[in-house]
Amino acid sequence: MVITMAHGSGGAATSELIDEIFAKAFDNTVLNEMEDSAVVEGSARIAMTTDSFVVTPLEYPGGDIGRLAVCGTVNDLLMRGATPKYLTCGYIIQEGTDVELLRRVATSMAETAREAGVTIVAGDTKVIEGNGGIMINTAGVGFVPEGVEISATRIQPGDVVLVSGNLGDHHATILGSRMNITNQIESDNAPLTDMVATLLAHKIPVHCMRDVTRGGLATVLKELSDSSKVTITLEEESLPVSPAVRDFCGLLGLDPLYMGNEGKMIVALPAEAAEEALQLLRGANYGADAVQIGVVTEDIDGHGDLLVRTAIGGMRQLDVLQGEGLPRIC
Amino acid sequence: MVITMAHGSGGAATSELIDEIFAKAFDNTVLNEMEDSAVVEGSARIAMTTDSFVVTPLEYPGGDIGRLAVCGTVNDLLMRGATPKYLTCGYIIQEGTDVELLRRVATSMAETAREAGVTIVAGDTKVIEGNGGIMINTAGVGFVPEGVEISATRIQPGDVVLVSGNLGDHHATILGSRMNITNQIESDNAPLTDMVATLLAHKIPVHCMRDVTRGGLATVLKELSDSSKVTITLEEESLPVSPAVRDFCGLLGLDPLYMGNEGKMIVALPAEAAEEALQLLRGANYGADAVQIGVVTEDIDGHGDLLVRTAIGGMRQLDVLQGEGLPRIC
Repeated sequence: MVITMAHGSGGAATSELIDEIFAKAFDNTVLNEMEDSAVVEGSARIAMTTDSFVVTPLEYPGGDIGRLAVCGTVNDLLMRGATPKYLTCGYIIQEGTDVELLRRVATSMAETAREAGVTIVAGDTKVIEGNGGIMINTAGVGFVPEGVEISATRIQPGDVVLVSGNLGDHHATILGSRMNITNQIESDNAPLTDMVATLLAHKIPVHCMRDVTRGGLATVLKELSDSSKVTITLEEESLPVSPAVRDFCGLLGLDPLYMGNEGKMIVALPAEAAEEALQLLRGANYGADAVQIGVVTEDIDGHGDLLVRTAIGGMRQLDVLQGEGLPRIC
Repeated sequence: MVITMAHGSGGAATSELIDEIFAKAFDNTVLNEMEDSAVVEGSARIAMTTDSFVVTPLEYPGGDIGRLAVCGTVNDLLMRGATPKYLTCGYIIQEGTDVELLRRVATSMAETAREAGVTIVAGDTKVIEGNGGIMINTAGVGFVPEGVEISATRIQPGDVVLVSGNLGDHHATILGSRMNITNQIESDNAPLTDMVATLLAHKIPVHCMRDVTRGGLATVLKELSDSSKVTITLEEESLPVSPAVRDFCGLLGLDPLYMGNEGKMIVALPAEAAEEALQLLRGANYGADAVQIGVVTEDIDGHGDLLVRTAIGGMRQLDVLQGEGLPRIC
């Protein structure tokens, strides 16, 4: 069975689609009320974010658009030190989409939401012309604990930069899928919930966290060096890349510094706290390969710089990603 | 200038698009922080909702997709008695979209947000293949005042049903636009903020509110009669339709009961409060044509019914919209 324009009417067919697919997958007391909006418990300070997901293919080694749509938004909340609580989801479905595919995506979304500890409290479904395709928007609300102040502007000279694991996996997976290349690479799409919760529970004095998504590590760190007006210097030899992704990059001439992940983050914090933080990250879910990759110093020109010390000792200045990047990676 | 795939890279071109279009239009201190998520003041009870907007054409008499994307989500929050506070917005833009069109849509969105009293606190931009098209998701958070309990399940025998104005305007506008028909009909897309705030400020004992969108008045009231397990009986002669929309419907054989609006709501409340509520609605923005359209009685078969007493005195049972409806109306 496939989706037709009638499923977007707002009438009987829409109700059936919602009952059969989404209500069954996301089943929870708030969503089951089927009101225009969900009324839920709040908090004195909340974090809010949104992301739309247009990844192709919809299913890929290690994940799918449903898992990605939860991880992307949950991770953005976590990066401010918030505890993710509620998600909304908006599905835009092309006619011709196989209902079983839609069911798998919704089920994966529900499982990932459970893993990340969030409740899907509201949803919306639209159907557009096309030939089988799904786009998902998620928006999230998290509670920000008192005293937590984590921001892109708080990186300071004397900080070091950690990364929670290997670079480039999601990008290499999507590209490999489109090229029909068979290899061992899987997407790292994952919620960063456990790592962040562990750092905060141990009162690690985190100044900034940022997940490494579109644009890759270089784009993310260049934006942060600009926001905090500091110089970040990376050690090329310390950048973690799995052997399979390194081979893949070598073959295709790709630079892991500009390749997106979907389950990795950088953490900037005072050097003296780095060792404890690394141990905590390595003991948490998805953090086994965490390492220190760089140091933060005062910026000499006042606008922020990102440098990398190459393996042979040279120094190279990095900018944000220029040009197209990989389309529809997330 | 048109949008290219590079604007979706997450790199330099994406930043430029965000700075030039969205940051300028939505300009506010929270969004200007450009963090992964916005941290804002919360409340003990919050309402959350989401809607995606895929309307075509993107601009139509009386509005555009940007205005619609604010109204749809703000209105869903209001229908629970919440005070709308924050919006997130996710743009999915097809390559080839004219940048000036995008600027007009974002500007309209910003103006409507100001009118509705909400702040756009977070956003996301994706670019997909295509030939110039924009889809927008908005998610909203509102604060629910203590003691307010408005829900689809609270309609009771003895209640009456009011509607805040004429039916079918948005539907007729979109259909007329696509058919290149020139007439006086304009979309009613509007935030219901003032009407709801007025009712709540005067302690009107509202049991249920619902905006009349996809599927039209009949679909909305049939769903509510099911949720509250009551019989709702409408008086056909009291249903408000403007002369222009009535002519349009006659010409094309359309039924205003199944045509969507984007700035109208029904209110169910005890009969004794109806007159004061009508006066308040008529004095508020967008409520000048508010009238009583029906009464609520006990349901005899226990699952909810929607009836209409026709002009010649017959009684007809109404169901939710069957089949396709008008595609991409919102």
